[in-house]
Order: sequence, then structure tokens, then C-alpha cells
Amino acid sequence: CSISKLREWAHHGAPMFADLTVRELKAVRAYLHGIPELGLTDARSDTLKKNSILLIELHLPKKHEALRALDRGQAKPTRQARVIIQFGNQTKANISEYIVSPLPTPKTHTIKTFKGDRTIKFESRPITSVEYHHITNMLTKITTIAHKLLFETTGGFSFTDCSDRCLTFSDIAPRGLGPGERRSWIMLQKFVEGYFIHPIGFEILINHQDLDPEKWTVEKVWYNSMYFDSVEELVAKYESGDVAKVKLPDHDDSDLFSTYIPRGQSNSPTNIHGPKLVEPQGPRYHIDKNFVEYAGWSFAYRVRSSAGLQVFDLRFNGERIAYEISLQEAIAFYAGDTPAAMQTKYIDAGWAMGTSTYELAPGIDCPEIATFVDLYHYFDTDKPVHHKNALCIFEMTTAMPLRRHFNSNFQGGYNFFGGLENTVLVMRTTSTVYNYDYIWDFLFYQNGVMENSFETVGLKFVNFTNPWSPKNFVVQSKLDRTEHKTERSAAFRFGKKFPRYLHFTNPNEKNKWGHQRSYRIQFNSHAHSILPRGWREENGISWSRYPLAVTRHKDSEATSSSIYTQNDPWEPVVSFEDYIRNNEDIVNQDLVAWVTVGFLHVPHSEDIPNTATPGNSVGFFLRPFNFFDEDPSLASRSTVIVRPDKDGKPKVQRWTPEVVGHCVTDKPFFYNGTYAGV
Amino acid sequence: CSISKLREWAHHGAPMFADLTVRELKAVRAYLHGIPELGLTDARSDTLKKNSILLIELHLPKKHEALRALDRGQAKPTRQARVIIQFGNQTKANISEYIVSPLPTPKTHTIKTFKGDRTIKFESRPITSVEYHHITNMLTKITTIAHKLLFETTGGFSFTDCSDRCLTFSDIAPRGLGPGERRSWIMLQKFVEGYFIHPIGFEILINHQDLDPEKWTVEKVWYNSMYFDSVEELVAKYESGDVAKVKLPDHDDSDLFSTYIPRGQSNSPTNIHGPKLVEPQGPRYHIDKNFVEYAGWSFAYRVRSSAGLQVFDLRFNGERIAYEISLQEAIAFYAGDTPAAMQTKYIDAGWAMGTSTYELAPGIDCPEIATFVDLYHYFDTDKPVHHKNALCIFEMTTAMPLRRHFNSNFQGGYNFFGGLENTVLVMRTTSTVYNYDYIWDFLFYQNGVMENSFETVGLKFVNFTNPWSPKNFVVQSKLDRTEHKTERSAAFRFGKKFPRYLHFTNPNEKNKWGHQRSYRIQFNSHAHSILPRGWREENGISWSRYPLAVTRHKDSEATSSSIYTQNDPWEPVVSFEDYIRNNEDIVNQDLVAWVTVGFLHVPHSEDIPNTATPGNSVGFFLRPFNFFDEDPSLASRSTVIVRPDKDGKPKVQRWTPEVVGHCVTDKPFFYNGTYAGV
Ligand SMILES: [Ca+2]
Ligand SMILES: [Ca+2]
Ligand SMILES: [Ca+2]
Ligand SMILES: [Ca+2]
Ligand SMILES: [Cu+2]
Ligand SMILES: [Cu+2]
Repeated sequence: CSISKLREWAHHGAPMFADLTVRELKAVRAYLHGIPELGLTDARSDTLKKNSILLIELHLPKKHEALRALDRGQAKPTRQARVIIQFGNQTKANISEYIVSPLPTPKTHTIKTFKGDRTIKFESRPITSVEYHHITNMLTKITTIAHKLLFETTGGFSFTDCSDRCLTFSDIAPRGLGPGERRSWIMLQKFVEGYFIHPIGFEILINHQDLDPEKWTVEKVWYNSMYFDSVEELVAKYESGDVAKVKLPDHDDSDLFSTYIPRGQSNSPTNIHGPKLVEPQGPRYHIDKNFVEYAGWSFAYRVRSSAGLQVFDLRFNGERIAYEISLQEAIAFYAGDTPAAMQTKYIDAGWAMGTSTYELAPGIDCPEIATFVDLYHYFDTDKPVHHKNALCIFEMTTAMPLRRHFNSNFQGGYNFFGGLENTVLVMRTTSTVYNYDYIWDFLFYQNGVMENSFETVGLKFVNFTNPWSPKNFVVQSKLDRTEHKTERSAAFRFGKKFPRYLHFTNPNEKNKWGHQRSYRIQFNSHAHSILPRGWREENGISWSRYPLAVTRHKDSEATSSSIYTQNDPWEPVVSFEDYIRNNEDIVNQDLVAWVTVGFLHVPHSEDIPNTATPGNSVGFFLRPFNFFDEDPSLASRSTVIVRPDKDGKPKVQRWTPEVVGHCVTDKPFFYNGTYAGV
Repeated sequence: CSISKLREWAHHGAPMFADLTVRELKAVRAYLHGIPELGLTDARSDTLKKNSILLIELHLPKKHEALRALDRGQAKPTRQARVIIQFGNQTKANISEYIVSPLPTPKTHTIKTFKGDRTIKFESRPITSVEYHHITNMLTKITTIAHKLLFETTGGFSFTDCSDRCLTFSDIAPRGLGPGERRSWIMLQKFVEGYFIHPIGFEILINHQDLDPEKWTVEKVWYNSMYFDSVEELVAKYESGDVAKVKLPDHDDSDLFSTYIPRGQSNSPTNIHGPKLVEPQGPRYHIDKNFVEYAGWSFAYRVRSSAGLQVFDLRFNGERIAYEISLQEAIAFYAGDTPAAMQTKYIDAGWAMGTSTYELAPGIDCPEIATFVDLYHYFDTDKPVHHKNALCIFEMTTAMPLRRHFNSNFQGGYNFFGGLENTVLVMRTTSTVYNYDYIWDFLFYQNGVMENSFETVGLKFVNFTNPWSPKNFVVQSKLDRTEHKTERSAAFRFGKKFPRYLHFTNPNEKNKWGHQRSYRIQFNSHAHSILPRGWREENGISWSRYPLAVTRHKDSEATSSSIYTQNDPWEPVVSFEDYIRNNEDIVNQDLVAWVTVGFLHVPHSEDIPNTATPGNSVGFFLRPFNFFDEDPSLASRSTVIVRPDKDGKPKVQRWTPEVVGHCVTDKPFFYNGTYAGV
């Protein structure tokens, strides 16, 4: 099939993967709200005892149906929505997922089932803004009782009536010690910029399982490293002197500690702009809605509200490299010695990390020349939410050659010099999950290499009573293409021997040199096992056992995690281990590679005000290995070749304008090539 | 001591580390040539039986003397030169090293001794252009005898009288199987662009130990996977039919196979320039000769002719982070099934990798805006050799935030957004060691993180008879700062458990939070052991046993390798294992960290015409760990902070010009911050 035909089909199929439009989101909501039996009311109304929509997003077409459009140009399957509904106003409260179809004018809704017909426990649902509202109300009551203690401890801070000396709170997860619980440790903090690193040493365990917030209870209070059964008990003992009064160091309003306000000096000026990217002759990539082309690459993308960025139908020169590459889950497990810190195991899909794609700042989050794209999410809301500039796409130079060679003649001259600048297309979103920001990058190099790179930055919880506590960050991705023997043999455990080269090979295809055509996964990761196998919450993150696992593709095994894992990791609705338990044969099958990368972060003073990106990147490369007949970046006309002419003068051969442009340099490229005695 | 005083002393001391000037190089040569007993003649004269200078470079001052200038502003020690002389015109030919002093007007020369008073075997010297000249002469004779065989095998190529169908050769190392040998396998290749990957399947073992080239002998010939004792034997058997004739595929002059000439198509345009770096308000770094300042950093640098780039007196905010960081050695060990490939173990200091710093192309090797610096080398020459634009220094943007945080108010708005763009100062040289190019980068981030990053690109030998053979690349660096218990306990072996965090701590210093001030080494490496311990050539690279080893600083243990290792790895003059054998106590001592990084490269078709950089970077980070009280990049005025004002409108706080400049964008920075329902 011709490359232009393949390109046309890829373009034709891309809309199948596009996120739902505002019109589609509204139509799905209206359709479901029009069904009396569902009894839906507004998500943002004050009560918890109600039936309401939690999330609406695109429901992906089945792979074999999508392939008919992508590989043969046939009609695209119907667009569908996935909807999560919380049924709080029922005898037995529950959560159900529906497939609503067809879009943009829905007519049917069917229940979406889970592997093993598992049901979703109501207590495993993510926390909503209404629930936070009631938690805030409860904290208002509690802090009123403990007002004097808090005021004295902090030197004048309070939760209410506080103007510039306010307290705020953070809640941690999971919310309990076993399935069905919804009990959260909450810690109070000074409400200053960077409040995550201003805990005041007061933590409280609230049971908020009941749908009637009047029935919520305080189960434990922690103050001065001691536990109390109630706020009243603590206050009484505080007053009677049975518990020593803690007095935090005086609060200095002018202390910039956790803010971004610059301070200090450096040798060289920073009050002028640093180096910036420009495009002297305009962009070299094309974007048509969610379809992107660059160098030999093409792909479709999507940012799902549940779990973030996905790439579909990734091709090079029209040929598919991967059907889907998507972020699955990100976890941050803490160690520490306060009750909240000890229990903190953030599993971020449960915090709707796909929804937390806040605005990207030009010149900081992405270069000024980037293309910024708006996103729309429908999560814990009554109308679609517009996220301005939430995704960016840009080409950058790495300020380094992709290839270069100086071919010396070993006599003060050279036979030739050849080089090609290394540029790369970057697609980026961020997720701000409470106290930290993830940066998710997909990078597409001219030579057929793709890189996934993840950074975590942002404010970390800091426990002021004790040395800062380490945390493990782990990110899971999914890559749909492989070849191996059986699932169990292709599930590599952390701590076990790991092959130095991991090839995903099509045994039926050879390149022109007779070698099997492969792509290779190369890790950039420092992840280790996080919890002992099978240990309580570890069941919810069984994917984290394997830096790499390979399974047979099933449309029913689309994700390795779910938004319910955070609040019930003990009996997860989606359990990755199920996918490999049947140990299917994987030879000549349609396969999925599950990649886990991460690092251990031990906090240190330079994390103030915020962890920085240099050295904090993890991810993986997809690299062609005998997939092409030669380096496909040979197609780039940006190559420069210099050869001495017969008089020894350098002769430059190039296919781009001789002068880059006045913003960069007015001088044409010049190369001398000799290294003469003086 | 004040920061400005510390900065002044750093600046004052930097010239101690500057490479020798042309004037100094010439003065040293003239001084030595004026000493009759040395009997020196020109290095480039035709004979091998002569005494001549091989190399002149700066001889470093002793550390404790240098520190008097750097830490107290005292007078700098005398500048000295290190000179390698080959005494070929002696009863017992030998190599000696001298310290010549003082510069710029030398008056004395003293012998430089080696640990254990080891002497340098004459056969371990690097190969010179005169020796290559005689090898070429010998090959001319040999290929004349085998002319018909070569012509028929290659379809018309010959070593002499060949116009556009020429053969060339590559020699490999080490040159033998034990000390004192000088026997090289030489392979013939088609002399086309990228000739390293055009072997013709004809290899020859030449014994060139004798200083009289007339006495050189052919010891073996390899053709059609068979060995012969002489060219004459091979030719006779070829003619008689006792050895089958090999006929290579027809040579296609229009086959671009190994050239850089662009071919093929891509989706998006490459005949216009890609993104480029500009400096809208000029550079933000200072260079004064070999002294560089950027952000809080300062350092001196040098590119020694023996082993390349070094950084000295690396400081942040005037405080020393490391006394010396320098590249020591790079090795590339091959596997393969021709006699040459099997024996190839390149140990690149022996190829004067510091001298092979060829010209950097603006816009390819370094951005157009870089500062390009010329270097001068004195190696295998009779006058200093001028390398134009051989080093570059530039600031770049990584197109990524250094820090960013979006602080949501969880109600469609935000408390603040803060961010700082990640820019970094890069200092780069390359070494073209025959068929591949190393790219050596030192990167200095605004937040006190330093990165060493190495890439290998370039043409690899490819064996056309068989699958391409893997090679291990390993690079060794030296870092002068540490703290541990004993040398043996701080020598971590490959394959053994390696700590996840490596801290170099000063036990006597704490930051304002009471934590020990440390720097951390973080590896970016996929290196493994290359050869079994003690196995023949492995003795020459005993440093490669340890990803990290820590030893006590000694001026006499300045390098872990030498330019003599390549041609005598069996009994090396400099043996790293000696440094840890005495297992000294390293608590509260002046210490050196020896870092080894590398990767395994299995060649594949995408290495044509040249291995590419993406994914091929290894190195290490030096990261502050409680070294500062907070992120030192807080000094940067490039920070942007956005807060909603009381009407909810975004208020931007910044310390740089509001408009970047017309080359990038005319629009002032704008941030919206809200995520509203639609
Ligand atoms: Ca990244
Ligand atoms: Ca399975
Ligand atoms: Ca690099
Ligand atoms: Ca020692
Ligand atoms: Cu950190
Ligand atoms: Cu490669």
C-alpha cells in the first residue's frame, strides 16, 4: 500500500480517538438526565445522598473495529461515551459505569462490566467537592473547639476568622485500612504559599463513610506525637497540663521560605531573558485537531479525564509502530512518622489526574513558540470544564547533533564533515495532583526514536517534626505491540535479572539486510519494588511488581488501574495481576507491553520551595532496531555536508536556506575543517 | 569570607589550569631541542630510529599549592610542562616523561616517575603518522602482490592507481597478545564515504615492532574466513583454486548507503530551518579566558591533549563543589568474528583522544549563538596545531520548567501559579577517535546541579560477513570530593549491590536545618563488567571494575589510565587497582571519586550511516543534597509568579522584561489561571 494512502487512512481514523466535544458531553448528560429511572440530580448540589454523574469521557472503539478504519479506510465505528454514575440515593449505594451510544445523539445506555463481574464499592469512589465542603464544615466545628490550642501552638493562626493567619488542611489516602472504609487522616497546615510544607503538627482521623455528614465522627486526634480519642479529650488534657503545649517557632510574615519570590545573588544577570526558541521559517509540524504529523511520524492523541495522555496509531512513514501508548497510573508512596504520613499512598488516577491538566504558561511550561491546545473535562461537575492551554506541542532543538562525523585525513585536513542537528517534537501535558505537578512528555525524534519522559515537580508534604521522609514515585504506561512466549515468562519482576536489550519483534518481517524488524524498549528508570508482594495496599498496584510485563491484547483489559484503586486498593476493581494469571501464549499474538518506571525521592533542603526537574526525569525510549533499512532521519533536508574542493577550500552542501534568518544569525554557515600547525 | 573575595580568588587561580599557549609550547620545544644530550630531531621526519617529542601539555600544579592561590589569594605556583619523549635512537629504545619548568622561559627538566617506578615500554607508545606512513608503504607492496585477488573480489577496487575505486585500511588495537609486542591486524575497506562500514573481507597481521620498516613482516592473512601464513601463499592458493574466490556484490556508485546525502520523504518540511536558539537580550554567562561564570557557578577549564576536557575549582556561590572533574579514559570493546574484530579493544587515551578535538559546526554541533573557542595541541607534530572552534560554551533552554506549581483552589480558580524556565550552561568538546565521535558535555543547571553527559556517535566497524557485533562503550571520569570509611569499602563492583543514594558528605558542616551538607552522585548508565577480572587486557582497565571507587587524593595518582595503555594493557604503566590496594582510611581525608559509566551497543541497521544521539547518552549528575538551605536557583530573576487580584484578574509578578523581544514574541506574558464550566 502506498505511503500516501496509509497517511490518508491514519488521518481518516484519528477522530475515533478524539476526546468528547462540549456538544457531545452536554448531549450525554442531557440524555442520561432525561431517563427517570436513573433519578439523576446535579453533581454539585449539597447532599451526598443523590444519584449523579461523576465522569463522562470517550469510550474507545474496539481495536479490531478501529483497525478497519485505520488499515483499510473503512467507515469509523460509532462514537460512544463512558459515564460513571454514583447512586447515593439508593437502599444500597453503588457506583455503575455505562456506555452511552451513539454520539452525538445518544439513544442507548448499557452497563459496562468489569473482569470477573466485580462490582465497584461505593466507598471506593473518588472524593468530590461536595464531600470536601462537608469536611470543611466539620473541621470548622473541630477547630472551634480546639481554637485556643491551635492559636497558641501556631502563634495566632486559626481555621476561621483569620484574615492573613489562616489554617488550611490536606487529606491523605487511602482512607482506612481495608475495603469499605472511608476514614481519612487530615492534617492542618498554615495557609501560606507552599502550605504543604507548613504542617502544624495537628492531625485528625475523620470517619466520613456515612452519606449523612451529621453522622461523621472524629476517631483519633494526634498532637505533640500523642494520640487522643477526641478533640475534647485533647483540649481537656491540654488545659490541665496533661499534655505539654507545643509552641511553633514564631511565624515570620517576611520569611519567603516556601514562596517562589527570588532572593539571593548570582554571578551573572538573570533580569534579562535567557535563551529562547524561535522558528526562523515557521513550524515544521502539522496539527489537524488531534492528528499530528512531524518528520516521518503521525499519530492521534487524547487526554482522557480519568488518566491523562494517550497516543494512538503511532506510525512512521505510514507504518504502525504502536496502536496505543498511554499513561496508566502514577503513585507516590510516602514514609514518615506522623499518622498521616505513615498512611499516605497516593494512587493518582483516583484523584482524576487526567482532569488536573491546568494551564501551561508560555515561556515556562512550554516555549513561547509552542502550539497550545485547550481541553475539556467532565468530572465532578454539571457542565464541561474548559481548560485553556492545557496541552502543548512544539518542536525544539536539543542543541546537539543527531549525527555528526568528522572524517580526518590525519594530515591536517579532512575527507568530509557531515552533521544533522537534533530536533524533536514534544507533546506535553501536566497533572497537578494536589501538592505535586507531573510533567508528561511524549518526544518524537527524527530518527524513529520515541521517548516517554515523566517529571514530578512541586511541593511535597514535609513533616517538620522529623527528618524528611522518602517517597517512591512510580508511573505506569501501556504500549500495544510485542512478541514473546508466554505472559508469565514475559513478566519481569523488580529485583530479578532483567535483559539488557528488550526487543519487540515481528518474526514474519525482515529488513533489507535480512534482520528481524524490531523496536527496542530502553529504560530510564530507578524504580524498585515499593511494597512486599501481596501486602495490603500492594494488591491495588500489582502492575508495580513488573518493570515490564507483556500480555495478550484484550479490549476488556484496557487499563492496569482505575479511579477506584485509591480508595480501595485492598480489593481493586481492576487488578493487573489477573491479566497474566492465565499465562496465555503470546507468540504471534496481538500484544501489550506494560512498562513501569519510577524513582525514589528522599527530600532535601533544595526541594524548597519546590522539587526541580534536572535529574528527576524517568521514562523509556522506543528505538528502532533493524526496523528500518537505514536511519530514517536520512530523509531530513537539514543535513549539512562539507567536503574540501580540489583547492582544499570547504564546499558546503545543504538543502536548507543558506542564512538561518536575522533573529539567529545573518552569517551563512561556515566550516573550515583544517587543523594546521602554527 | 565574602562571596566577592571568594570569586576574586577563583578568578585569580584559574590561569593555573589553562592549557599551554602557543608561545609556551614553542618555548618548551626550543628548550629541549637545545639540549644536546637529548639528541632530539623532528617528530615528522621519516625515520623511526630517532629521539623526538611526542607530546607537550600543561603539567598541573600540586593540589596543595594550587589551593593556596584559590583559597587565600596567594601567588600562583610556577607553570610547568609535561613532555613525552620517544628515544628511538638508543641502544635500548625507551619512552620518558619530563617536567619542564618554569614557563614561559624553561630552565630545567626533570624526569617524571611513575608509581612503583614502572618504566614505559617502547612498544606501548601510540602510533604516529610516520609509522602510518611506513605501514601504508608496506600495504602498497602487499596489495600489489594481491592486486588481482583484490580487484576481482571487489569488482575493480585497488589500493594504488585507483582514482574513484580505491581501497583504504583501518588498524586495530591492542597490537598483539602480550607486553612488548607490536603486531597489528589491518583490514582493507573500500575508500568511500563511511568506509568503516565497507570492509572487503581481507585482513592482514603485520609485525611492525622493529624500528627498521624494512624488517617488518606479514604474519597472517585472512580471506574468505581462512588464515594464510603469507600473501604469497594466499595468492597461490587463490590462483590454483585451493581457496574459493569471493565476489562482493556489485559496487553501485550511486548507492548512498553510508553517506549523509538525504534521501526519502517525510510528512513535514525539512527544507526550512528547524527551531533555533536566540538570546533576546544577549548572553547571561561570562567567559574570561578559561574562567567561566554562570548563575551561581564558576569554574576553570582545560582540554589536555592526552585525555580531553577537565573542569577545575568548580564553585557555587563562591564555595567549592569539586576541585577537579575530568574525563580519564574511554574504551570501546568489540565482539565479532573476523580476526581484527575479535581483537579490537580500543582504549582511546592511546589514540590521543584529547587531541582529536576537531572543529565544531555552528548550528549542528553547537547552536549558532554559542561561544566557540580555539584550542592548540602539541602531539606528534613539530609545531603547535591550531584547532579552530574546538570547544563551545552556550546557554540553552531545555524547553521545560525548572520548577512550576499550579496551586488550585479546587473551585475553578487558583491561589497562585509560579514557574521558572529551565536553562542550562553547556560546555562541549568532541573527540573523533577514528571511526567514532564522542561528544563530551558538562552541564551546569541554575539549581546547583551539574551533569556530565557523554554521547558516542559516528561510524562503527561493520563486518559484512556476519551479524553486526556488539560493543561496550565505557567512560571513566574523576571527581575530587568525597567522604567514606576505607578505600576498599568504597570501591563498588559491577554486579554487586549498589547503593540507591550516593552522598559525598562533609561531616563537619550542616545546613541551617541541621542536616549534613552533601552532594549526591546519580548515575545515568547502563554499564556492566566488560571482561572477567584479571583477564589479559582487563588489567589495563582495572578502573572499569567499579562504577564508583573512592580513593585518597594523591598528586601522584592523577589519572586512572595513560596513553600507553592501548598498546600495552597487559602490564600498564598506570594501574588503577594500585590506588585502592593499600586500602587507606578515607574518613576526613581529601578524596577522589572515580566514576565509570557506559553502555552496550549492539549495531543495527539504523546505525547507517552513523549512530545517532537520542537514547545514547550516559553520564552522571552531581546534585546538592542538603548542601544549600533552599534551592539556590531562587536567586534567578527569571521567575514568574501569577496571583489573582481581588477581582480575580491575573496579576503577573516578574523581574525580567515584560516582552521577550520581536524574534520570539511581541506579546507580553499572559496567564489566565481559571478552568471554568462552559
Ligand atoms: Ca522529560
Ligand atoms: Ca492474559
Ligand atoms: Ca549529552
Ligand atoms: Ca590508596
Ligand atoms: Cu529532591
Ligand atoms: Cu545503535
